[in-house]
Amino acid sequence: MIRQRIGKLQASLRRRKLDAILITEPQNRQYLSGYTAVDHGIQETSGVLLIPVKGTPYLLTDSRFVLQAEEEAIGYTVELYPKGLYACLKRLLPGLGVKRLGFESHYFLHSSVAKMEKMANTIDVKSVPLTFVVERMRVIKTKDEIQALKKSVLLNERVFQLVYNTIEPGMTEIEIGLALELTMRELGAEGPSFDTIVAFGTNAAKPHAVPTDRVLKSGDIVLIDMGLILQGYCSDMTRTFVAGKPDTTYLERLRVIRKAQLAGINTIRAGAVCRDVDRAARRVIVNAGYGDFFGHGLGHGVGLAVHEEPRLGPRSRKKLRAGMIVTIEPGIYLPEWGGIRLENMAVVREDGCEVLNEDVTGLDL
Amino acid sequence: MIRQRIGKLQASLRRRKLDAILITEPQNRQYLSGYTAVDHGIQETSGVLLIPVKGTPYLLTDSRFVLQAEEEAIGYTVELYPKGLYACLKRLLPGLGVKRLGFESHYFLHSSVAKMEKMANTIDVKSVPLTFVVERMRVIKTKDEIQALKKSVLLNERVFQLVYNTIEPGMTEIEIGLALELTMRELGAEGPSFDTIVAFGTNAAKPHAVPTDRVLKSGDIVLIDMGLILQGYCSDMTRTFVAGKPDTTYLERLRVIRKAQLAGINTIRAGAVCRDVDRAARRVIVNAGYGDFFGHGLGHGVGLAVHEEPRLGPRSRKKLRAGMIVTIEPGIYLPEWGGIRLENMAVVREDGCEVLNEDVTGLDL
Repeated sequence: MIRQRIGKLQASLRRRKLDAILITEPQNRQYLSGYTAVDHGIQETSGVLLIPVKGTPYLLTDSRFVLQAEEEAIGYTVELYPKGLYACLKRLLPGLGVKRLGFESHYFLHSSVAKMEKMANTIDVKSVPLTFVVERMRVIKTKDEIQALKKSVLLNERVFQLVYNTIEPGMTEIEIGLALELTMRELGAEGPSFDTIVAFGTNAAKPHAVPTDRVLKSGDIVLIDMGLILQGYCSDMTRTFVAGKPDTTYLERLRVIRKAQLAGINTIRAGAVCRDVDRAARRVIVNAGYGDFFGHGLGHGVGLAVHEEPRLGPRSRKKLRAGMIVTIEPGIYLPEWGGIRLENMAVVREDGCEVLNEDVTGLDL
Repeated sequence: MIRQRIGKLQASLRRRKLDAILITEPQNRQYLSGYTAVDHGIQETSGVLLIPVKGTPYLLTDSRFVLQAEEEAIGYTVELYPKGLYACLKRLLPGLGVKRLGFESHYFLHSSVAKMEKMANTIDVKSVPLTFVVERMRVIKTKDEIQALKKSVLLNERVFQLVYNTIEPGMTEIEIGLALELTMRELGAEGPSFDTIVAFGTNAAKPHAVPTDRVLKSGDIVLIDMGLILQGYCSDMTRTFVAGKPDTTYLERLRVIRKAQLAGINTIRAGAVCRDVDRAARRVIVNAGYGDFFGHGLGHGVGLAVHEEPRLGPRSRKKLRAGMIVTIEPGIYLPEWGGIRLENMAVVREDGCEVLNEDVTGLDL
């Protein structure tokens, strides 16, 4: 699998007349090498791939990661850079005959490029900015990847159900968030794919609410947005419900969101334009009079990263292709009242899409 | 507090003949505004500060974060960028009279700078790369910040002790890691400041080991590197011990590491050169014959970020100053055997340093 991916990347280097590429983006690194180390932010990398247009690829890292690198990155030569990445490149590149070196412009700091160019000049190498070369490979998932994503989604659903069954007035947002993250890991996930959102009542009006010690009261809205990482692959799901008996306003608004979600889902197929999918869902919300309260895009891709291409937003003219994965997550947010969001994940097929969630919403529309 | 910080930054802008600065680095953003939103990687910001050389500063964000931004960033004007950051800047900068705009070169993607420059050209603005302007302010901690860091360190110690008391053969690395992170959050921490390391036996030979389902056996080394975030401030601590009775090899090596740590601590004072502190500790390890097995630097700064300036490494010629915070964390890593690391945090004083940890090592040297 990894050998095929490298082969495809090398073919793309050849077309661009590049002798090698540096891979700095962590999920691209994992995709191309199997190396799973996590970076502590862009300023602290746990390693960089140097993939020449032919021959053995290199994983450049430091002594803290060398054992993990050697265990995981099969087919790679692991090199240490005790004097830093640029000193290491200066030593390696001439021997590999590299004259034109691609780098990931969208995951390379402006200040680091300056350092790299300074080094490159001394050995007569030209650095060439590239964007999203590996991301374009990642956006179409193989059958195995779709299976892995489905497992991640179903485990996420299971975690939700287990914790959902224990939720009762008196619990705090933080307590529920903790229970979700603990259950994820007890059931085998590597961890959450993003900071779990648990928001009660008016807190649900913040699409990216941070859990607080607010106590759940009967009648409160509960919005939970959660995802986990299972064998590298992410899930992402949002559920909204009411503790106790929902009132008619809530039920009316919930139906609007659910209808919007179904409108989006029914528009997804290979060849559909991303903004048309967003528009189909958005129209339902606008027509119901809530257009001003749906401020974000309809969805995004999911894979090794929880947010990746494609984006289902009002300005995206890109076309969906079979094998892409997207979330469909319409929502409305009313500061004095609260919010509702529903989010599922689906795989794009030639003639439609397949929702990966069990989606037991109990909504009869 | 925040007003003073902004004033200091504005004075620095004046000296550099800049009309405004964009703050993209998340901890700098928090330091200058109080806004605590977390970024999901550099490609997904939850907001950017635009601080003019005089007048009201702006927090630019999107609708997902607007309520949190307005609650937290007192004294800021919150502006949304529904059409993206650069369209928003294009609209705001002319009215503010900005001709020279600083940006954080060390936290700005190469591809984003290209987009910003394209926008800036159309409105006759020059973008000026800067590095570590706010980081240089952050490196010296105030009395209040030192208090906050001490609280974070002591809570971290307490979490360790609580979980330490429950550790027994049969537990896995993942179980102990989970117990630590759960206890952190139950006791009021926002979360871990980095992925908790729990490593048994030979796994402890990886300085950045990832917890596995390896089962603890009597006689195994246990290395735990853990930290938490409490009211924004990070802690970072490593403890190594043996499940059951340690053998003489372990005890001999543990004493070496402890002596190295004390040698480092005894060298820290305002005016000391960072690499001299590293060298004092390293010499103990080299003299004991383990020089090849201590591959990382002695320590690093801690504050709003868990890794920040200053770096106590063999190549750093910078001088320590009073009010800096550093870790002192010598270690040795022997692939066939395991590893030992001890890590405390200390505040640099004029005439020495004050260790913030309780440091109940039970080591009688």
